[in-house]
Amino acid sequence: MEGSRSAPARPGTNLPRIADFNQAVILNAVRHAPEGLSRVELAELTGLSAQSVSNITRRLLDRELITEAGTLVPAGRGKPRTLLRLHAGGHFAIGVHVDPTVTTVALLDLVGDVVASVRTLPASAASPPRLVEAITAAADGLVAATGVDARRVLGLGIAAPGPLDPGTGVVLEPPLLPGWAHVGLRGLLHEATGYPVVLHKDAAAAALAELWRGPRGSAAALEDFVFLYLGTGLGAGLVVGGELLSGTTNNAGEIGHLMVDTDGPRCNCGQRGCVGAACMPRNLVAEAAGVGLLRRPGTDDREIDELFTDLCALAADGSAPARRILEASAFRLARGAATVSNLLDVRAVVFGGPIWDRISDVYLPILRETLLTTTEARRVHPVTALGSSLGADVGAIGAGCLVLEHAFSTRPATLLLGAREDAVAATP
Amino acid sequence: MEGSRSAPARPGTNLPRIADFNQAVILNAVRHAPEGLSRVELAELTGLSAQSVSNITRRLLDRELITEAGTLVPAGRGKPRTLLRLHAGGHFAIGVHVDPTVTTVALLDLVGDVVASVRTLPASAASPPRLVEAITAAADGLVAATGVDARRVLGLGIAAPGPLDPGTGVVLEPPLLPGWAHVGLRGLLHEATGYPVVLHKDAAAAALAELWRGPRGSAAALEDFVFLYLGTGLGAGLVVGGELLSGTTNNAGEIGHLMVDTDGPRCNCGQRGCVGAACMPRNLVAEAAGVGLLRRPGTDDREIDELFTDLCALAADGSAPARRILEASAFRLARGAATVSNLLDVRAVVFGGPIWDRISDVYLPILRETLLTTTEARRVHPVTALGSSLGADVGAIGAGCLVLEHAFSTRPATLLLGAREDAVAATP
Repeated sequence: MEGSRSAPARPGTNLPRIADFNQAVILNAVRHAPEGLSRVELAELTGLSAQSVSNITRRLLDRELITEAGTLVPAGRGKPRTLLRLHAGGHFAIGVHVDPTVTTVALLDLVGDVVASVRTLPASAASPPRLVEAITAAADGLVAATGVDARRVLGLGIAAPGPLDPGTGVVLEPPLLPGWAHVGLRGLLHEATGYPVVLHKDAAAAALAELWRGPRGSAAALEDFVFLYLGTGLGAGLVVGGELLSGTTNNAGEIGHLMVDTDGPRCNCGQRGCVGAACMPRNLVAEAAGVGLLRRPGTDDREIDELFTDLCALAADGSAPARRILEASAFRLARGAATVSNLLDVRAVVFGGPIWDRISDVYLPILRETLLTTTEARRVHPVTALGSSLGADVGAIGAGCLVLEHAFSTRPATLLLGAREDAVAATP
Repeated sequence: MEGSRSAPARPGTNLPRIADFNQAVILNAVRHAPEGLSRVELAELTGLSAQSVSNITRRLLDRELITEAGTLVPAGRGKPRTLLRLHAGGHFAIGVHVDPTVTTVALLDLVGDVVASVRTLPASAASPPRLVEAITAAADGLVAATGVDARRVLGLGIAAPGPLDPGTGVVLEPPLLPGWAHVGLRGLLHEATGYPVVLHKDAAAAALAELWRGPRGSAAALEDFVFLYLGTGLGAGLVVGGELLSGTTNNAGEIGHLMVDTDGPRCNCGQRGCVGAACMPRNLVAEAAGVGLLRRPGTDDREIDELFTDLCALAADGSAPARRILEASAFRLARGAATVSNLLDVRAVVFGGPIWDRISDVYLPILRETLLTTTEARRVHPVTALGSSLGADVGAIGAGCLVLEHAFSTRPATLLLGAREDAVAATP
């Protein structure tokens, strides 16, 4: 079989089936060219023969994974070429973001655009069975409301706080969700919805969303970046060489207890100066209450979230003490971002998540300046701080992208429970 | 070209030439099976046709990259199969480790075994031109002394302190080598020796050595690990999915200023509690001198190294204050190792480098205990602390492995200056 490109051998692993592989190659090439590609260009890009490209694109057209979209007339000689694109409305994915403060369910089309989304009970206010019920109702409702054929839904992805057990699909003991020890969320949702279900960490899903939507988003064309996810807690999603780096058990990105300030606040781990504690709305709100800027909050995550919105509004309205609290947090986060970028040698750190839009005005200038001036590789290349353009729904979008990624990938980084025989990557 | 495995497409990148790719696939399969593989097994492992395997192995035999080594007689029916192995003596690589305290030059055979090695002037005691002269003499001397045909030397690898500029092969401003700002070490050594030359960071090279020699070494069969390199300074080498993770400009692994102790010693960066400062022999020796255990050292790196040996000997002989100094350092290093393993979700951290053999008795139990009990993923999998078995020469071995890796890889992570047309991976 010389005459075709092959992946480097890793003896002992199972090699993917050949037809799957080449089909995924074509599908990914089309995915990365939203403006469309002709069959001739596909052959050039992938090294596959014209005959193979023709066979594979025929199958992909039949399955409504790609579609013919316009014609390219070459500038010089040559006949017009039909352009192929992903068939946006051919298939869909459901993304669910489980956060202590809010649960978001989104319906994505095949190119990763949000068709519709809805918010439901936050995980901190619902028992696991009750939340599974609410998510199922929300997912079914979105599918019904949009008139999408449920058979065109490839699966349901969940983005949840770590640590997770990827083999069993269990949310272990997320420190910010006290009632959620060892919940088999993947299995419960598969049972309740009937969809194939994939589970990954919130920050990893957010990074995947940025990668998937990149060409239209803020991290355009970036192949190596860290996504710092700011929500009820802090996590990192790592992207290396255009792929999510998930670690040996999908638990990469735990940076909450990265130490960033010898004079920082005490963390619940017993140490001082952890970056997670320095950015948690709960702690920032408590600090503001301590100096009389806000009323003292209870333990309800939604109440804390509302008070945090008030704190950000105070800073925006010119309150110097409110601003100082946020700035101190930003400097600590910046040091954490610099530490991670020193370790991985990335060109950008993307910031986003549920609280990002409220803090970006104060945080982003500090993050930019710190990354440009203090990283170890600054003499070789700048490290840029970027704000995510995907807003508060980045977790849910990422959760949907987990399903798309699984369908498109030859080497999925996640386990899809209940994957069907007729799934995208299967040989026809 | 359906019917053969293909790598996932990454449109826009240059696709390696097909024959190179399949040849590298075969070569890597043989490399990872030191016990030997038959042509039938190679076809099964790689998915290539019997005819392709036969053609490629013929070429590799002609070039003395592989060799026929014995015959496997199947237990049941079937005819005896000739086993193929790497031809250890067919080709060689020179590895050079440049450290402020010592410069090591090693000659490796094609399987990565050290044929001969020699120590020469340390970088802190020689100007760059003088050091290039000494390295050239050492390399030529090793080749002459072992009777190796210089035409069989694939190239020379250098492991040096970062940061580095990979495009130009320049050592930028290593903080522990004050006289070494912007030295074009790769170009100078290529000019002086005539060999193709590759340059990478010391810690990355050490990690590669562990990966390359793994099946016989301590990190056997590990595909995901962090190598913490302890020398004049501290650096990290990252291995993910069986490959070196070098970052966007080969500068990944800068962890010297990772904060690990709010009460830690002051670092030259102005911060307190940096993990690099907590493990530097220079600081530990100064601390010991401060409490009267040792005489106060000057600035000479070799003198500091000798005093550090004395400090370790004191601890081994039962001196409680000497032991306390090393233990405090070990706890700080352990916290740094836990932080990095939390970020990357690895199963092991391997410790090694020039000072490792002197400190392992005190450090390893503390590192083991901390990694087992404090990592975030401990409920999913243990994180193991391992000592490198490659000794003080791990940097030089890794430097040689950079050349081997380049020759074997379809996607080399480093730039080889002066690579020849007849290099291993080229199409015949």
